[in-house]
Formats: sequence, structure tokens, C-alpha cells
Amino acid sequence: METRVANHAKGKVYVDKLLGTGMAAKQATIQYGKENVIDASMGAITDDNGTLICLPTVEEQLRTMPIQEMIGYSPVGGLPRFLEAAIKHTFGEFTPDAYICAVASAGGAGAISNVIWNYSNVGDAILTHDWYWTPYTTICKETGRQLKTFNLLDTEMKFNLRSFSSMVKSLLLEQDSLVIILNSPNHNPTGYSISDSEWDEIKSMILEEAKDSSKTITLVIDIAYIDYTKNPLSARAFMKKFSKLPSNIVVTFAFSMSKGFTAYGQRTGALIGVSSSKSVIEEFENATLVTSRARWSNVNRGCMNILANIYNDNILLKKVNSEREKYNMLIVDRAEVFIKEANQIGLKILPYHAGFFITIPCDQPEDVSNRLITEKIFVAPLSKGIRVAACSVPVSQMYGLAAKIQKAIVMSDTVKL
Amino acid sequence: METRVANHAKGKVYVDKLLGTGMAAKQATIQYGKENVIDASMGAITDDNGTLICLPTVEEQLRTMPIQEMIGYSPVGGLPRFLEAAIKHTFGEFTPDAYICAVASAGGAGAISNVIWNYSNVGDAILTHDWYWTPYTTICKETGRQLKTFNLLDTEMKFNLRSFSSMVKSLLLEQDSLVIILNSPNHNPTGYSISDSEWDEIKSMILEEAKDSSKTITLVIDIAYIDYTKNPLSARAFMKKFSKLPSNIVVTFAFSMSKGFTAYGQRTGALIGVSSSKSVIEEFENATLVTSRARWSNVNRGCMNILANIYNDNILLKKVNSEREKYNMLIVDRAEVFIKEANQIGLKILPYHAGFFITIPCDQPEDVSNRLITEKIFVAPLSKGIRVAACSVPVSQMYGLAAKIQKAIVMSDTVKL
Repeated sequence: METRVANHAKGKVYVDKLLGTGMAAKQATIQYGKENVIDASMGAITDDNGTLICLPTVEEQLRTMPIQEMIGYSPVGGLPRFLEAAIKHTFGEFTPDAYICAVASAGGAGAISNVIWNYSNVGDAILTHDWYWTPYTTICKETGRQLKTFNLLDTEMKFNLRSFSSMVKSLLLEQDSLVIILNSPNHNPTGYSISDSEWDEIKSMILEEAKDSSKTITLVIDIAYIDYTKNPLSARAFMKKFSKLPSNIVVTFAFSMSKGFTAYGQRTGALIGVSSSKSVIEEFENATLVTSRARWSNVNRGCMNILANIYNDNILLKKVNSEREKYNMLIVDRAEVFIKEANQIGLKILPYHAGFFITIPCDQPEDVSNRLITEKIFVAPLSKGIRVAACSVPVSQMYGLAAKIQKAIVMSDTVKL
Repeated sequence: METRVANHAKGKVYVDKLLGTGMAAKQATIQYGKENVIDASMGAITDDNGTLICLPTVEEQLRTMPIQEMIGYSPVGGLPRFLEAAIKHTFGEFTPDAYICAVASAGGAGAISNVIWNYSNVGDAILTHDWYWTPYTTICKETGRQLKTFNLLDTEMKFNLRSFSSMVKSLLLEQDSLVIILNSPNHNPTGYSISDSEWDEIKSMILEEAKDSSKTITLVIDIAYIDYTKNPLSARAFMKKFSKLPSNIVVTFAFSMSKGFTAYGQRTGALIGVSSSKSVIEEFENATLVTSRARWSNVNRGCMNILANIYNDNILLKKVNSEREKYNMLIVDRAEVFIKEANQIGLKILPYHAGFFITIPCDQPEDVSNRLITEKIFVAPLSKGIRVAACSVPVSQMYGLAAKIQKAIVMSDTVKL
């Protein structure tokens, strides 16, 4: 193939398995009727009729906003009232005692991408758990970073502190700064949430490593699914632990309006930095603003206003929270059916606390996924398992799904033997 | 200052002079009343009451779209119907005979940023004209590219082919690939449009350089203001010239919905690639898709639908074109008043063909801008002049403005002497 791109861009190929599965599912739905197809591939909430839902208060804001507030440019860093609301929403009652700064981003993905760019050098390893949202790889690879993983879970299906700690230590021997991405609570794809006591252990471990002040540890906490916790208030309790940390630990949160406010395609989020040092947080702000200006210039004003308006009016805030709770209960009901049946028939699943997805580990995910497709069941194949979207499968279709998946895994394993 | 960012990100400082002037203008308007303040800093169309306008058909689409089409995720590359519409809109009746591919982007800025990233190496010079939209510098600097300039105009106030050609030649001696940004028609900040015969000269010059097949020349044509040409149809005639070029010339267009569809803050555009080689265009698509996935994941679905819906319905298309024409006439009227007076009093301005801005060259732009602020007149200070936004100054306020600017320049020059 003739190549005209720059050296670093040669050979890039865009493959999106998730999207491929999603398109195939939509096609099958048209061909066979939605009652005959189970689309468990989609990472967005649909009601039991398969319709993508938008929280009514979010829709109302979007529908009634003055047009100027939708189409006008915003400051590069975002509307100040949005940033204030994003910080309030992120920390709830658990704001760390630290300097805090938010910069708007093109969704949560944009926030993660920006912090990796600014807090790591070319060639650096970036650390995350072995079960992870696959675009983390794309984000790293695109700028010459390398994504490395620790084992999220130990044999008791708890946070694997040993694996985490050993990877952090060994990477910090090789490089002066380390960016660590942790997706919690309600981790994609497993639904795992790091507990408060596990956060204590993570914090101690990092504090120990940070005693060497020449090292910088940057935590990127991807909280995309935080609002689908059973108790969204206490789910934020761990954030208070990031008070008064040494200045060589930079804690950042990737806030997103995609899931929590069902505004997925509006592409609005924020990168929120936390540091005990004023100068470190000023540096964070400057670096992030320049990257934002250089990559997308500014962020969707209309969607920023939705959050700002909601946080400017307690009645709206209560409304949107109760609307979200209703849909969260729908997800809980669906997940419960699946998990109960999985337990009954002995189908092993990864620990699910809450959130959009349930993951079933298996040896040949592609093969299992393909076998399920022949039964008009569409799941997301991952590297070490398959992902079922509890956010989008009607509860009626959840009955019997675990058994069908188990059958496909058994058949796949049999052929392999 | 304590530094925790990566080496390449150290010392970044975010300064936005334009925004600073804009905020000061808004403050003054609140303090003194809009009839007493001339805000010529704003790069968006306002009516003669100072209200930001949205083309009615665009607003109607935004207001009536099914909510799922606003909040749903899109494919990383954009909705296929949007991409088709973006290509139709960009080329009109002058589609080059070549392979063409569009990839959605976060505004025109995102399109420009992506192509620079993929078609240049770290350390490379990127070439543009000496009058340019200043974020080009930020985009280049952020990834270690260096923006270099040629003189846009010769002494006869025509495209300076000699300066252009000499820079292209000398840069291609030093590097194997060269990205060239040309903002035309209705260039920001001058309003200059490269004529069809000037495009012929540019093309011949580039063809000559491209005889060395080891070199790659990537043209980035920023067409943000194209729809504010007196004749938007013929303004596209030059595009046909990019038919059947050698495969080491990659032509790209930064399409934006910001100005042409008054959807500024919705952040929707596309990077459109043109090449005679199928494999070069496939490479373009892959590289751009991966960058998009890595930077912002996907683009505002609602705004993409606006364009797709408009291009799906000839009546809507005619409506939106006539709405735009009306506002374009408003800009023309304002610009005419200013230019007529400037000519009468001998105030030198750069050649203005059409578009949002008029530029007045001067030696001390900051000083002139500050002097004007004391008279409650807000203009954008550039490196070698000041910019007056014909898009946003009511025609009544245009009368006498040239004289006030002339006075400020004379005073500034006098103090300097």
C-alpha cells in the first residue's frame, strides 16, 4: 500500500468490533423483528421496548434552551457555570481538601485522552486493569504510549492489590512518571466497584511510592458509570481520601455527561484535577486548556448548559436524580434475572456490583459471540470474555439468556478440545 | 513553579487574547449599554440588535429532531448521511475527479488538528500565510510542529506566489512531507479570496515540486467562511482543479458547520480527503478515524443530523441558503460602509472580498486596540494589525468607525515616533 501519512501514522487501521456487532444487531432487528433478536451489545439505556431513553429533564432542558445558548461559542475551558456544576456533581458531599480545577472536554474519552497526553511521555507505559474499555489502547497507541495491565481481580474476586502494586513498582523503576487509569465504580465491562477499603490500600501503596519526590503518579479515575451505583451519594465517599496528598500525586477524574445524564452523542464531559499544590493545579489547567484548544477548540455549549441549569435549580436536580433512579432500577432488575440464573446453572460471571454491563469470562470470545449470533443474540466480544449490556436488554429477554450463553461457551470449548 | 506534567507539556500557558477582548466587550456592554459600545471582536453573526443569530431552518431542525437522534452515539467517523451531505455541500457542482472520503470532526479546528497530526512528523514545519487564525500556532506547537509563514500578499495586494513558492521549495529541501494550510475563500482575518487563476498558479507550483515522488505535499484548505462569498456556487469552482493529481499530493478540506450553518458551539465539522489513489485515501480514512477515536471518540450526533436532514430535502436546502444569503447581505452592507469610509479618509485596509472580518494593518496592534477600548470600541488585536468583525457590528455603528480607528493608529504611531 502506498503510504503518504507521517511516519508515526503509518499502518493505522481502524477496527471497531463493538460497532460491528452493534450494526449486525440492528440489521437483524430489522430483518427478524425486535422480539426475535437479543441486542446485548449496546452501551446505552433502552426501555423494555428497545427505545433509547433520554432522562426527561435532560430532554426538557435541551428542548427549551434559548437557541443562543445552544449554538454560541464557549470559552475553551468550558462555561464557568458548567465547570462548577461538574465539580459539584463529581464530588457530591466528598470534595477533597485540595485545589480543584475542571476543564471541559469532548466527552469522557476526551478527558482521558488529554490527561494521558499531558502527563506521560512518548514511550511511557500507562497502567490500567486487565478488563478495560478497549479505546484506552487506541488513545495510548495513537501518541506512542503503551497500555500495560495488572490483574483487576484476585482469586477471591476482589481488587488485586498485589498485581496492582507490583506493576506500579516495576513501572516506576523504569519511568519517572506513571499514569494509572482506574475505572470505578461500576467498571466497564465487569460492573466491579473498588470498595472504600480497597481505595485505602491503593492510596497507601501510591503514597509509599510517592515518597520518592522525583516520581509523579497521575491517577485517572474514569467515573463514567458512577451514577448507576445503588447509592450514588456514598459511591463518592472515596473521593475525600484524595485530600492533602503530596504534590507529586496528581488525581484526575474523567467526568462525562454521556451515561449519568444520557447525553451520549452530545459529547460533553470534563477533566477534573485535584492537587494539594496550587502551582501543580495551575499547570494542570494550562496544559489541559492548550490541549483542548489544539484538539477541538471548545465544547458543546448546549450540553454544558443542561448540567449548569440542572445544578442551578434544586427542583430540577431532584427530578433528574429520581428519573435516573427509575432507569437504574430497570437495569438492576435485568441484571438480577441474569445473575440469579447464572448462579443457578453455574455460569461463572465476573463480580458485578452495578452499572451497564455484566461480563462472562471465556476462552474464545469471538467464537462464542459468533455462535450466539446464529441464535440472533448479539453480545460484545472482549479479549477474555463476552459482555452483556444489562442497560439495553429488556427484562423479558434476560430470562434464559444465561443458559444460552453457557451452551455457546460449552460448545466452543468442546470444539477447541 | 513545581512541574508535574510530562516533558513536552512543561511551560504551556493558555492565553486567549480574542476571548479576553470579547469578555471585556461584554462587560462594557453591560456597564454602558449596547448603544454606547462597539463590539467588533466577535466572530459570529449578530443582527443589528446585537443578538447572535441562528439560521431559522437550522434552529427548526434542532428543535424538532427526535431526541434519540440528538443524544445517541454515532459511528466514530460520523453518520453516513452526514458525511454524504458534507461532501455535497463542500464541492457543490465542482467535485474533483478523485477518490473522496469524509470523516466527522469536532468542528473545523478538529479537522485541521487531525490532518496536521497525521501528515507531519514531530519537528516538521507547517506552512501557512502570514495573516492567519492564531490557533493554527497552538495546534502545531502542541504536538511539536512549527508553524512557518509566507507572505499572503504581494505589493499589489494579490496572492504572493513568489513568497509561497520560495517557502514551499525551501521547506521541501529540509523535509519529505509538507503540510500547507490555506484559508480561502474569505480568509480570516482579511476577507481575501484566492482567485481561480491564483489557484492555477498554486497548483502548477505544487505539481512541479511533486515531481519528486519521494515528497508528499498535503494541502489543508480551510473553507470555514466559504458560504459567505457573494456567489457561493462559483466560489467552489477551484475545487475541480484537484482532479487526477499525482498520488503524492493529498488535498484535504476542513469543512465546518460553525459559520455556514451558524452552529458554532455545536462543534461539528469534517475532514474531507481527496486523492487520485485509492490506497492513499484508504490510508487517510484509517489514520483519521484512529485519531478521532483517540481524541474525542465520536461527534455531536444532533448537529450532524441537521446537515443530513437539510441535504435530504431540497426545500429545506433552498430555505437555509436563502436565510444565509439574507444575513450575508447584512454583512456586505456593514463591510461596504466601513470600506467606503476607509477609502475616503485614506485608511489602509487589506483586500477584502467577503466574509466575517476586515483587517487594518498597523505597527502596534495592542496599543491601537487599547486606545480604542478607551472609546468603548473593541477590536481583535493581531500580530500585524487589528481585525474588525463585520459579522457582528450593526450597520449604524459602522459609520464613523474607520475614522476612529485611523485616529487611534495615528496617535499610536505619533507616540512611537
